[in-house]
Amino acid sequence: MQLKIDATDGTARAGQLHTRRGVLPTPLFMPVGTRGAVRTLDTDDLERLGAPIVLGNTYHLMLRPGAEAIAERGGLHQFMNWSGHLLTDSGGFQIFSLEPKVDEDGATFQSTYDGSYHRLGPERAVDVQVLIGADIQMALDVCPGLPAPDAVVVAAMERTHRWAERARRHWHEVADARPSYQEQFGIVQGGIDPVLRAISARAITSIGFDGYALGGLSVGESRQEMVPAIAAATELLPLDRPRYLMGVGDPAGLVEGVANGIDLFDCVLPTRLARHGTVLTDAGRMNLRNARYATDDQPLDPDAICPLTARYSRAYLRHLLGVHELTAMRLLTLHNLWWLARLMARCRAAIVQGTFESFRKDVLEVWGGR
Amino acid sequence: MQLKIDATDGTARAGQLHTRRGVLPTPLFMPVGTRGAVRTLDTDDLERLGAPIVLGNTYHLMLRPGAEAIAERGGLHQFMNWSGHLLTDSGGFQIFSLEPKVDEDGATFQSTYDGSYHRLGPERAVDVQVLIGADIQMALDVCPGLPAPDAVVVAAMERTHRWAERARRHWHEVADARPSYQEQFGIVQGGIDPVLRAISARAITSIGFDGYALGGLSVGESRQEMVPAIAAATELLPLDRPRYLMGVGDPAGLVEGVANGIDLFDCVLPTRLARHGTVLTDAGRMNLRNARYATDDQPLDPDAICPLTARYSRAYLRHLLGVHELTAMRLLTLHNLWWLARLMARCRAAIVQGTFESFRKDVLEVWGGR
Repeated sequence: MQLKIDATDGTARAGQLHTRRGVLPTPLFMPVGTRGAVRTLDTDDLERLGAPIVLGNTYHLMLRPGAEAIAERGGLHQFMNWSGHLLTDSGGFQIFSLEPKVDEDGATFQSTYDGSYHRLGPERAVDVQVLIGADIQMALDVCPGLPAPDAVVVAAMERTHRWAERARRHWHEVADARPSYQEQFGIVQGGIDPVLRAISARAITSIGFDGYALGGLSVGESRQEMVPAIAAATELLPLDRPRYLMGVGDPAGLVEGVANGIDLFDCVLPTRLARHGTVLTDAGRMNLRNARYATDDQPLDPDAICPLTARYSRAYLRHLLGVHELTAMRLLTLHNLWWLARLMARCRAAIVQGTFESFRKDVLEVWGGR
Repeated sequence: MQLKIDATDGTARAGQLHTRRGVLPTPLFMPVGTRGAVRTLDTDDLERLGAPIVLGNTYHLMLRPGAEAIAERGGLHQFMNWSGHLLTDSGGFQIFSLEPKVDEDGATFQSTYDGSYHRLGPERAVDVQVLIGADIQMALDVCPGLPAPDAVVVAAMERTHRWAERARRHWHEVADARPSYQEQFGIVQGGIDPVLRAISARAITSIGFDGYALGGLSVGESRQEMVPAIAAATELLPLDRPRYLMGVGDPAGLVEGVANGIDLFDCVLPTRLARHGTVLTDAGRMNLRNARYATDDQPLDPDAICPLTARYSRAYLRHLLGVHELTAMRLLTLHNLWWLARLMARCRAAIVQGTFESFRKDVLEVWGGR
């Protein structure tokens, strides 16, 4: 994996992430395919969207259909019949939202599907992700909910560091045993305290991963709290490695992440909003359930016409949404993902042109209040 | 509207229904787009399927978004952005399942959306369907549930005849007032009694419609009860007009309908089955939830590979179904509609080749037990 930086503008950067599978243009938003499909979409849809990478969720996939089951089907690429990139998260975020029993060795948690108990530690998280077979896997981290007492944040961070060492060591063992095909990213923790984020960034980079993620952000804190924590970490991350801000997908958070040197993002927000009738537009959030759209023959965003949904009017989509047709959820999902991909392409173009700061301000003017 | 018969085989017939909009090959199964979309699909999907016609549901559309609202948006074709054919049912079937208050003038029923009261009679049903603007509209009929006492079936049939006369008269008034663009089909009632079906066929054909439908069948009676009722009606229907068996979409019912001279069918069955994980295949009904498919890498029906879903394995689709992904419901819907379109194309080919009887037996061998 090689990151070629095409341009920088302040700390923002536009690059090309070259992998064994191809090239990812950055900055890039990665749609989330939690259970092996982006909700309401199929692999054809992802290709039509031109999405170069999709996330799989380790927690969900290890429970349904099971990591071994996916491996038996040839891995997640073959299972979904998807030739683009895949990244799997470590499962940490979901597991720590389930109040697991955690000890130094790992975490025991209950399946939301059938209540059965499961165990995940740093080594098993590597193995599970090898079985799933994405192009990029994540080290297992400890994710405290925010706000949390300092001692909780520090303890989670320090355990994250110890688990990261074990995860990287095990990943090397696996990679030595057979030709390595996966990259592994480490995750920086440390809550919203810039000092802790800096400590964590140093600890994780000293282990040495193929890329670096910031975890445990966008979990309830304000954007004013989040941004300094991002900046404190990214200024210590190596310039030639990709940086991934986990769980951020709102337009303001995205441009602030890009401004602070982030290359990759993921979030369920745009797809979840779509299923609830909220449309991302150049004019801001649009609630399609609003009665005013019942007689509106325009496409979802006349300023940014998604080619996959251009033929449908707001009035028609509002009607389908109102009568609970899944069709509407899928079409709004397509639009929102297309719109976010376009936002990231515009970030990239602004960086290349050296106009990112004014682009950022324009986006924050529309989206910064939320 | 002109029906050109290309071939007959016994009472089965293969034709081309020429309309102002184009040509419909018959026999033909028409997918149901109840609320202005086939559930889980969009207009792009219908085009990919090659569906030449879709049904709209008058009852649902007059309540949401409202017939006037659709007319203001340019009619249902423009609302859905669909350039294929459209047919609207009269609303009778849904209304009579809601225990309406019925008098000679019409029926008063409650909206399932908000409990509000609405009134529909034969004239208003014409007007509502003019507003919706499909290519073909249906006369309002009285649909008793089966089994029903003879007196109820006879009374419903006789009122259906009186309403058909009023509907046709009003349709002519509307057509005279402005250039006619819609065809109107009359509906034969009469339960499962061949004598009543014959009486009804004579009464409805004596009024003179552009096409003839059989209503009130496939409502709980056995196929052995249904088929003689169909035969009794179709042998009295004019040869040069299309015949439409309403609400039949199971493979055995379809071939039996075709065998008895039916040209058009509709039913929500194939799409409803799909959403519940039941797949139509050449080997019969397949319950994709069955555990055996968890490790099955074949496409849904290896003997009949739908091009829109061919890239996905049974194992993958079963997984998506099991974790309640809407994606699976949509893909199975595409498969089932494709499979039924193929069944009808095979019926047509068998009629043209003069081998329909053996084709019918083959289909009944697989599907006849259900």
